[in-house]
Amino acid sequence: MNIKSLKLGELESLAGDIRERILSVVSTNGGHLSSNLGVVELSIAMHYVFNPPNDPFIFDVSHQSYTHKLLSGRWNEFDSLRKFGGISGYTKPSESEYDYFIAGHSSTSISLAVGAAKAIRLKNEDRLPVALIGDGALSAGMAYEALNELGDLKYPCVIILNDNEMSISKPIGAMSKYLSQMMAGPFYQKFKSKINQLLELMPDSAAYMAKRLEEGIRLITPGMFFEELGLEYIGPVDGHNIKDLISALSVAKNMKKPVIIHAQTIKGKGYEIAEGPKEKWHGVSPFNPQNGIALQKSSQKNATEIFSSLLLELASKYDNIVGVTAAMPSGTGIGALIEKFPDRFWDTAIAEQHAVTSMAAMAKEGFKPYIAIYSTFMQRAYDQVIHDCAILNLPVVLCMDRAGIVGEDGETHQGAFDISFLNAIPNFTLAAPRDELMFKEIMEFSYSFNSPLAIRYPRGNFGLSDEFKPVKVELGKSQILSQNNENVAFIGYGNAVAKAYKVAKFLDINPTIIDLIFIKPLDKELLLNLAKEYKKWYIFSDSAKRGGVGEILSGFLQENNIKDVSITSFEYEDKFITHGSINLVENSLNISIEEIAKKIIL
Amino acid sequence: MNIKSLKLGELESLAGDIRERILSVVSTNGGHLSSNLGVVELSIAMHYVFNPPNDPFIFDVSHQSYTHKLLSGRWNEFDSLRKFGGISGYTKPSESEYDYFIAGHSSTSISLAVGAAKAIRLKNEDRLPVALIGDGALSAGMAYEALNELGDLKYPCVIILNDNEMSISKPIGAMSKYLSQMMAGPFYQKFKSKINQLLELMPDSAAYMAKRLEEGIRLITPGMFFEELGLEYIGPVDGHNIKDLISALSVAKNMKKPVIIHAQTIKGKGYEIAEGPKEKWHGVSPFNPQNGIALQKSSQKNATEIFSSLLLELASKYDNIVGVTAAMPSGTGIGALIEKFPDRFWDTAIAEQHAVTSMAAMAKEGFKPYIAIYSTFMQRAYDQVIHDCAILNLPVVLCMDRAGIVGEDGETHQGAFDISFLNAIPNFTLAAPRDELMFKEIMEFSYSFNSPLAIRYPRGNFGLSDEFKPVKVELGKSQILSQNNENVAFIGYGNAVAKAYKVAKFLDINPTIIDLIFIKPLDKELLLNLAKEYKKWYIFSDSAKRGGVGEILSGFLQENNIKDVSITSFEYEDKFITHGSINLVENSLNISIEEIAKKIIL
Repeated sequence: MNIKSLKLGELESLAGDIRERILSVVSTNGGHLSSNLGVVELSIAMHYVFNPPNDPFIFDVSHQSYTHKLLSGRWNEFDSLRKFGGISGYTKPSESEYDYFIAGHSSTSISLAVGAAKAIRLKNEDRLPVALIGDGALSAGMAYEALNELGDLKYPCVIILNDNEMSISKPIGAMSKYLSQMMAGPFYQKFKSKINQLLELMPDSAAYMAKRLEEGIRLITPGMFFEELGLEYIGPVDGHNIKDLISALSVAKNMKKPVIIHAQTIKGKGYEIAEGPKEKWHGVSPFNPQNGIALQKSSQKNATEIFSSLLLELASKYDNIVGVTAAMPSGTGIGALIEKFPDRFWDTAIAEQHAVTSMAAMAKEGFKPYIAIYSTFMQRAYDQVIHDCAILNLPVVLCMDRAGIVGEDGETHQGAFDISFLNAIPNFTLAAPRDELMFKEIMEFSYSFNSPLAIRYPRGNFGLSDEFKPVKVELGKSQILSQNNENVAFIGYGNAVAKAYKVAKFLDINPTIIDLIFIKPLDKELLLNLAKEYKKWYIFSDSAKRGGVGEILSGFLQENNIKDVSITSFEYEDKFITHGSINLVENSLNISIEEIAKKIIL
Repeated sequence: MNIKSLKLGELESLAGDIRERILSVVSTNGGHLSSNLGVVELSIAMHYVFNPPNDPFIFDVSHQSYTHKLLSGRWNEFDSLRKFGGISGYTKPSESEYDYFIAGHSSTSISLAVGAAKAIRLKNEDRLPVALIGDGALSAGMAYEALNELGDLKYPCVIILNDNEMSISKPIGAMSKYLSQMMAGPFYQKFKSKINQLLELMPDSAAYMAKRLEEGIRLITPGMFFEELGLEYIGPVDGHNIKDLISALSVAKNMKKPVIIHAQTIKGKGYEIAEGPKEKWHGVSPFNPQNGIALQKSSQKNATEIFSSLLLELASKYDNIVGVTAAMPSGTGIGALIEKFPDRFWDTAIAEQHAVTSMAAMAKEGFKPYIAIYSTFMQRAYDQVIHDCAILNLPVVLCMDRAGIVGEDGETHQGAFDISFLNAIPNFTLAAPRDELMFKEIMEFSYSFNSPLAIRYPRGNFGLSDEFKPVKVELGKSQILSQNNENVAFIGYGNAVAKAYKVAKFLDINPTIIDLIFIKPLDKELLLNLAKEYKKWYIFSDSAKRGGVGEILSGFLQENNIKDVSITSFEYEDKFITHGSINLVENSLNISIEEIAKKIIL
């Protein structure tokens, strides 16, 4: 199919086919639904007007790239969306030359477009970078950094602002308000009222002129924010009108300047149940497309839900508790806190850097901030964690959801590195719960703890429920879960304690099992005693080997001059981890229960 | 002295005294000069109008806080500026309650002000956060993230924009141009020309009205960018006129809203030699205040200069080499490249995130990007390094200046963590030169290497010059610098190889000395052989112990089941490292040559 040869009516009917295909696959496999339904026409118009892969198509976050995938030779494979070995839920160059870059974190697209534009200019090629970015993604600082350089250098590129008036949850921040004001007109209203004030000083005959000028100003002002940054602005355009979109994109294509096309879309467009700013339809599990009801729902509370209710409990008790999420209210469970305590919990929009540093100031003021950010998204605020929290030893709590393999979201989301990058930071304490009961104990501990603390916990359910009794948490104290007189110790951290337990069950052995609880500081006394009796340590942690639990314990043994203990770690090897169900991914990494069991030497 | 009781003339003469004091101390100790001379009146007005420490004074980057220090009880101690045990060159709460926060990295002040404002509102206190931020710092994304939330929540605070029309070097980016346009009036000019176009459609009698309206619009528009973000704007104000400043700040104080005060200042004001946008007067070494001539200048080329000339050589040879600095053209040596190849090297302003990601796109396009960012500033782009460079295995080169202890800049600048946070990233290779000759070899290697590579090198001079012969660099190959048949091996990485060499000299011994060259990947073959013959490994690296070279090698030994080698590392203990000359700081950490020598057991 050559999309460029289709007539408008055919393009419109193609949009219908695409919607059907997306709905059918996403309702079966899970995935991002409403964002994809919202950009069907936009993606069609992009493919119609521009020439991918020659023109780099850069999808911000790229969870909205399904239509693009369907239009670039992946119609049939699309059934395998997000499955192990199948089509990724994000753009992925190894999957297709039409996918210019990988993206799973927000707000990188304009920087990529600037880089591509620089390259194109140097190579003197006739290509045009085209970025598609949501209004929510504009809240992240790096988008602004890129606009700032682009508006200065003025390299040709097209930035399509997909304005559905919500980031993942709802519009937050002044930029978001600015965009909706542009729509509703109060920018112009405000301007008008200021002009009216001035006119009071002028002769009566001004009325007619003023009216004409107001109209003129109305034409001039909507894109002023962007124009002030040196960017051309076209819009707003109806993001579901293919004809209008083609016309606007064609104009932009020929401008040879950086252009913002402001398109208004409706999330979930065409699937009525999901239409509009409904966070639950952003990312979905399999559901019945007839009624929108989820096909299965675990009865067990997942780690996020546990965190959310524990924090709610604490925050009800202690009114100096405050907290923040960066555009993930339901993903982190902070949404429930914002609802209950709107004065003490905030959603900063996609702004991890600001979220962390603003909470550092609150800690300095005597508040106890809980900063809930996914493991890989915390990478965005690494400097702020060091520079603004750790140097002053401020009692913030980093609540790091999605630690370990997260499954279908793949490379960009697997929470493998947080132990490595946080362990190096002075003044920091790192802890992880193995189950709900210990989560409660660690949260209790966190409130009274007076230094920076990071708590990591998995996506989904804990692998243990009530197999072991909890202990009251003391700083740097580990727990012996079971002890025997064999030579072997299973040392677990966080959710991976479950794996230690399951491997032992599978082998039908009774090793000594330790829950570290803290990886920093280590329980020196317990570990030194352990080293006296147990000479084979097997390490279980959902984290990268490099800088991970095994390496930290190896360093510990060296520091304490212990020579006769061997360490074998079942953490992740040094490579990025692909997408697919957690089980299949772990199988592929040879860290399934069965594979690990084979490597245990008694 | 109660500043609030002084008359205007007295305040002005105080400004003169402060300038003299700053010039005298900075010309003796070195430090930040022109930025401090530029904000003397601003700081006086802040102290006059507001009530520190009750009102949090938040200095962005805080290298411009000298006047504030002099006004808050540190006039006499100021002689010890930047010396070990003396007054810090940045704000530091442990030094004075007047220093609200630590800062050494740019653009955190608005986030801190937002956090403080949230706290003040919750505590219902009568205090007002006051942030002082330079126009250069506005280029960083996190400043925008904070403005975005502030403009939405509208908590009272005062943000003083210190506009000296330069960041550290010169104004870059659209925002910078916007600010200078506000001054020069072309914003208004542009507006006027658009209105004139509209007026052409109108009756002749419009001329008079149009003129009046233009004047009105001129009054309305200067702060529009900020007003669109929901912030009140006052300005521009002459930043050297104490009376005007007091008046503007007093207005802002009573507005109970977030207010931007736009003050125009001149860097170096009052010391003619340094006045204006002259990068060399930003941070200075001791100099003669009579003529501005530096007191001493090492004849040896420092690591930055070596890097700069090596890259210049490479870039002259290979025209697909491109590169970037984030507002540190002379600090990183990229300035020379921008001068020579203005089409291929860029200064993105303070925008590490955008710098890294835009270069990732250039790498994808077949270019070879050299990204020169200080070790601790790279923390700002950690996610971009992982998400945009490493996942796609793109051949970027991170050129990490200021690795190891940097001396007088202290906690926020000591480059201790880069090995730890980069080592965990798949696809990454880490290398470090021990001297100029090896730097050349590593740079040669870097050009043809086809994956992400990070090279770390120190502030100032290498400790070695031509003591050892260079080798051609091969991926993951270490070098045996000297070999003997004692039991002891000194293993060095980067500039710390010099320390291994000097400790051996000091002890008058001839240990086997290894230069790792690469810490990732390790030279497995060489290390396994080494382990057979040498059972005591002493580790020399200018980096944190946690996740550092010693820990990595401990993990290596465990993985290879080697039990009889002991590792002792002379890396940094797990705490933040204070300011002072590198020698004194190292003494205080017990890692001087003499102290290390005591710990060597033959």
